[in-house]
Formats: sequence, structure tokens, C-alpha cells
Amino acid sequence: MRTYAKLMGEYGELIGRKNSVSNFYNGIFDRYENPVLTAEHIPPFWKYDFDESTNPFFMERLGVNAVFNAGSIKLNGKYYLIARIEGGDRKSFFGVAESESPTEGFSFWDYPVELPDTEPNETNVYDMRLTPHEDGYIYGVFCSESHDDSSADPSAAVACAGIVRTADLKTWTRLPNLKTPSAQQRNVVLHPELVDGKYAFYTRPQDGFIETGSGGGIGFALCDDITDPVTGAETIIDDRVYHTVKEAKNGAGCVPIKTGRGFIHIAHGVRNTAAGLRYVIYAFATALDDPARCTARPGGYLIAPRGGERTGDVSNVVFTNGAIADGEYVYIYYASSDTRTHVARTTLARLTDYVFNTPEDPLRSADCVRLRGELIRKNLEYLSRG
Amino acid sequence: MRTYAKLMGEYGELIGRKNSVSNFYNGIFDRYENPVLTAEHIPPFWKYDFDESTNPFFMERLGVNAVFNAGSIKLNGKYYLIARIEGGDRKSFFGVAESESPTEGFSFWDYPVELPDTEPNETNVYDMRLTPHEDGYIYGVFCSESHDDSSADPSAAVACAGIVRTADLKTWTRLPNLKTPSAQQRNVVLHPELVDGKYAFYTRPQDGFIETGSGGGIGFALCDDITDPVTGAETIIDDRVYHTVKEAKNGAGCVPIKTGRGFIHIAHGVRNTAAGLRYVIYAFATALDDPARCTARPGGYLIAPRGGERTGDVSNVVFTNGAIADGEYVYIYYASSDTRTHVARTTLARLTDYVFNTPEDPLRSADCVRLRGELIRKNLEYLSRG
Repeated sequence: MRTYAKLMGEYGELIGRKNSVSNFYNGIFDRYENPVLTAEHIPPFWKYDFDESTNPFFMERLGVNAVFNAGSIKLNGKYYLIARIEGGDRKSFFGVAESESPTEGFSFWDYPVELPDTEPNETNVYDMRLTPHEDGYIYGVFCSESHDDSSADPSAAVACAGIVRTADLKTWTRLPNLKTPSAQQRNVVLHPELVDGKYAFYTRPQDGFIETGSGGGIGFALCDDITDPVTGAETIIDDRVYHTVKEAKNGAGCVPIKTGRGFIHIAHGVRNTAAGLRYVIYAFATALDDPARCTARPGGYLIAPRGGERTGDVSNVVFTNGAIADGEYVYIYYASSDTRTHVARTTLARLTDYVFNTPEDPLRSADCVRLRGELIRKNLEYLSRG
Repeated sequence: MRTYAKLMGEYGELIGRKNSVSNFYNGIFDRYENPVLTAEHIPPFWKYDFDESTNPFFMERLGVNAVFNAGSIKLNGKYYLIARIEGGDRKSFFGVAESESPTEGFSFWDYPVELPDTEPNETNVYDMRLTPHEDGYIYGVFCSESHDDSSADPSAAVACAGIVRTADLKTWTRLPNLKTPSAQQRNVVLHPELVDGKYAFYTRPQDGFIETGSGGGIGFALCDDITDPVTGAETIIDDRVYHTVKEAKNGAGCVPIKTGRGFIHIAHGVRNTAAGLRYVIYAFATALDDPARCTARPGGYLIAPRGGERTGDVSNVVFTNGAIADGEYVYIYYASSDTRTHVARTTLARLTDYVFNTPEDPLRSADCVRLRGELIRKNLEYLSRG
């Protein structure tokens, strides 16, 4: 058999592989056995030249390193992930993967997304959030990164939010990059509804490229005209806090999920360790009538790296920028260690219960012990009643 | 079956699981197949609300992230670990786990330790060393951490040594935090005997919270009155050394083990790498008549991370703050990667032989080769004699 036929066969088997709920249990969400997207989910014809005359050794000509941080949307009954695909050369780009199922069977369209190339200094793009907006468009907000030419350091970068819009995930119109009072932005998310007649962005003000500096926290800012996107002042709606899962930095993740009790936000929090940064996923809620007003802050994390998720190109990281609310279910697409994309499944009822009934972080060890002591006391009484 | 009954059943199976010596061999100590404590060793009634009316989805309300860095003691024929339990919210607290065996079967008492809450700014507590002191008390010395309010950085912290004492691990009396000439302290250990009629502390002077700065090394300081614990000057008894396992920092671990040839110290050493700090466990000895005078320094490490120990919340770490000398045996309780707790078993005879007969680090590659050449030559002659 010709090598390309063998690789296409293996690829087809991978795409057709069934996925099942793992034996992980916490009552809050289900983990699945297999990732939904990995570097192996890239079609072989994206990597190899199939023509023997120009590729006699059937070698990869353009490698793919990782497939992670996927935006997500359900359209016309199908599930779509717009993944960050990182080539062997470290440049990321977007590809749309489609499936009839939310938890398995995702395959990429024939070509990656050709994003309009309107920013001459833009070196890299990644982490797109897909917002189906009440104005009728689907918006993609992503990180647009350029070299900081004011620095002699080859790794000095500047990040801001790029904006595209589409109706079908195929034809993309690019708008100007977002302008905010903060010098740099990453993890910007467009709210799905107008707020006071304006476009509302969740932002992450930062001083530098990696460090949030003295700023940080998840911000909120309004913009009159999405085609000339300049925001007003940023209000911090969820701050960094000492000795929590979001001590070093935090940022918005998925597009907020609208429920009867408020918007549920699934974000990421970062702390520092002796072995580098640790990223976990946490949740909070804001008010329906004021999405900038926080109404619930369950303590601790929702998802942390586990087992094989712990290691990868950037170890000790889980990150999400896509969730799909689908009838009673919610699917959270999260990446592990900047390498692969997983799915967690919960229900709107469970997620709402989690967000509104998980105790808030009491911020001090002694108070955490009191809280836990009350839970234990209640349970031991419950058990003793038989 | 009700979910809580299922979880309690799985928990019971885990606690009842037998442990056996692994096939790791170096002649110095045995490793065991299973960790003795993990997050799964936390009773389900510490995490879930068992009452259906208040927890209809049977979800975790207070997660537990990790169980590590356990102090240890043998009392009335039983083995006790006082573990650092880290909630999903990152706050640590202490729990006592008990077993009839030193290597398996540890289960937590019904409630975590309610440490007297006497330090209003204290945010976190961890890494307790249990010292059965000749004054009749069992002392617990731990790290007491607070936010550094002089800094605008939410992650700026100040660490010092907290002190409690008890007779039974149940009722704890808290003494004031230790005052030393150094601004911050972690890894403080109380020596089990009075020295010149005074309480003796092993300290770890440091400039900042993570960085030891220009200082570092394991210090030794005396204190007249344990109820008003202020020490005199700190003498460095085991310094940081260039290109050793303790180049970046080091700190006391277990309470020193008294042997006929001196006190054996099992400590930790840290070096820096491109992937963050690497923590290993090493040993040294001090004189019986002067526990501040080092008498043996076996080169290299005693325990380094291996296999699954290598990864966790803070990867590439082994750390110990508890050992039990038990007849001819010594059990060293060590944690891996800030995630789980293991046991290593050796004997007093082996540990003493290791500490006093392992060559000291020659500090230079060329001298290391000479040392190894001599060993090889001796062995080849031995083999050639048949």
C-alpha cells in the first residue's frame, strides 16, 4: 500500500474513533477518555507532499505541532471548533473542525482559515472566541501578536485583540484591531448582546506581554461602533486575589453562557509555582441586567490539569475559550498544556448549581477549615440518621 | 446504590489497599508501589454534601487538590501523618491520618485539625514538622504565610514559623510565631532536645518569600523560652554550594534522627533548571554533643523524583518533612511534585552507613572521575580475583 493511503486510513480511523465518559467523578462535569482534537487530527495532506516525484521519501514538508485553544459554536445542528493550530515553526493559525457530535468525530475542513491579512506587522494569531451576536453576525475575537520593534530583544512582543466576523465560518470580514485604554490585550471576549446599545468586551488589561504587571483582572468595556472598535474605560469585574487560583493573572475564557440566573463565565486563573505558571479553569456569574456585576464566585477551580493533561509543550495548563450550551447540556472545550483539546460535559442545571451553590473562597486557611468542618458535621449527622 | 455509598465504598477500598516494596533498588532504601496519601484519601464526606435536598446533583462542594508534605510521628504503637491538605482554592490546612502500619492503611480522622486562629493576617499554613520534645510536649512547627501588605503585587507573601504544641494530636495550643534575626523563615524544625538548656531551631534564613537571596543555607539558633520564642543569632550549619544538589537553596526536612554516631538530618536541596526549580532530598549528620556541627556530608542526593513522582502541581519536586525511626527501621515520608505522599523504608544501620560512608561531593568533575575510577579499579580487581 502506498504510504499516503496508509496514513489516510489511520487518519480516518482516528476521526471515526468513539469517545466515552471517563471514570473521573466529581458530580460537576464528566471528563472524556480521548481528546477531541490533537496534532494527529490534522489531515495528512496538510503535512505531506503526496506526489512521489517531488517527495520520494514521503516526508512531512510542513509539520503540525499542536491543536489547542479552540473557540466553538453550534450551527444548523452541527458542532464546530475553530482551533489554534500551531505549525512546527511555532506560528499559529485557525482551522475549522466539524462534527455531528459534540464529543467525537471532529474533522477539519480541507483548508485552514485564510484570515484577511490586514495587519502588516502581525506575526501570530491565536485563541479565537466565537460570539454569535444579537446583531446577526458571528464574531471571532482573537489575539493578534506582533514584534515589539521598540525593543532589541527578538522575543519582545505586543498583543492586541483582532476582530473578524462571518455568517458561515467560511467568509471572514476583518475589522480593525480593538483599541482600549490598556496598552496590550489578550483573552478578549465579545459579549453576545448589546449593553446599553453598545458592543461590550471582556478585556484583560496588562502592562506587558506575559506579565499583567500591577494591573490584570478581567475587565469590561463598551464600544459604540464595532467597525471602528475603540472602547471606553475598562472596569475590573473579576480581580486577581492573593492565594487563590487567580493570584498571578486571570482572563476571560468562553463567551458567557446565558442562564435564567445570570451569565455564567468560564475563565482561567494562573498562579506561579517553583516550576512555572499553573493555569486552571474557574467560573463566576454576572447579572443578566448588568453583565459587569459579579453575582457569584464559587471558590477554587472548576477544571485543573489531571493525568496526561499535566504535560505538554507548556505543562501544567488547562485553558478554555469555547463552550457550547446545547439543550440541557453544556460542552466545555478545554486544551491541556498547549498541546491538545479535550471536552468536558455538564448540564445547565449542574453548572448553575455549581456556580451559585459552591461556597465562595473564604481566603484564609482557618476560615476554610471552619467551612469544611461545617460540611463534615452536617454529613456525619446525615449518615448517623441512617 | 446511592452515590455516596458508592463513593464511600471506593474510598474504603483505597484505604484498605495493600502496599508493597517496588522493584527499585539502590541498597539504601526501598520505594513502595503506592503513595500512602493522595487527594483520593480524603473522605468523601469532606468534599460532598451528602444531603440530597441541598445537593441534588451530588456534586463536590469543597474540592481537595493535593495531599503532601506530611509531618509524622509514632505514638502508642500507631503511625500518624499530619499532612498538608490543599483545597481547590489553594488554601492548605492540616489533617491527621492514622494507621496500624507505617506503609499502608492511612486514613484521616473525621475532622481536619482546627489550628488556633491567633494570627489575623495568616492566609495559609503548611509543612508541619512534629517534634516529640524532651520537655514532654509534641511540637508542631509549620509555615505561617501572610500577604505582604507593603507590596501592590497580589502574590507578594511573607513567611514565618508558626508553633503549636499538643500531647495527643487532638488539642493544640498555639504559641506566638517564631522571631528570628532573618526577616522571613520557611522550613523551620525544632530539635528534639534542649541544647545548653535552650530550645534549638533549625532555620532557613531568607531575604524574600521564594528567593533565599544572598543568604540561605540551613541555620541553627537557640531560644530561651518557647512560649516567647525569640531566637539569638543564626549560625549556618549546612550552606548552599555551587554546582551541588543544594546550589539554589536548601532547608531542613525531618526532625533529626538520633543515632549512636550523631544526629542524621534529612533535608531538601534545590537547583534551578530551564523548567523551573528541581527539589531533591539529601542527608547529612551533626555531632551528638553539638547538633550545629556537621560531621558527615554524603555527596549527591538520597531521593530524587522518579517515574510518576516527576509530575504534579509543581513538577520535579521531592520533599520531606517527616520520618519515623521505628526499632531497626526508618520510614521517610516524602511528597512528590506537591501532589501526593510516599514512603521510603530503610534501616538505622543502612542510613548510618549511607551517611558516614558515602564519599563527600568532591565539587569538581575531574575529582569525581578520579573518585569513580578508584571505585571501578577496586571492583575490577575484586572481580578478577574471582
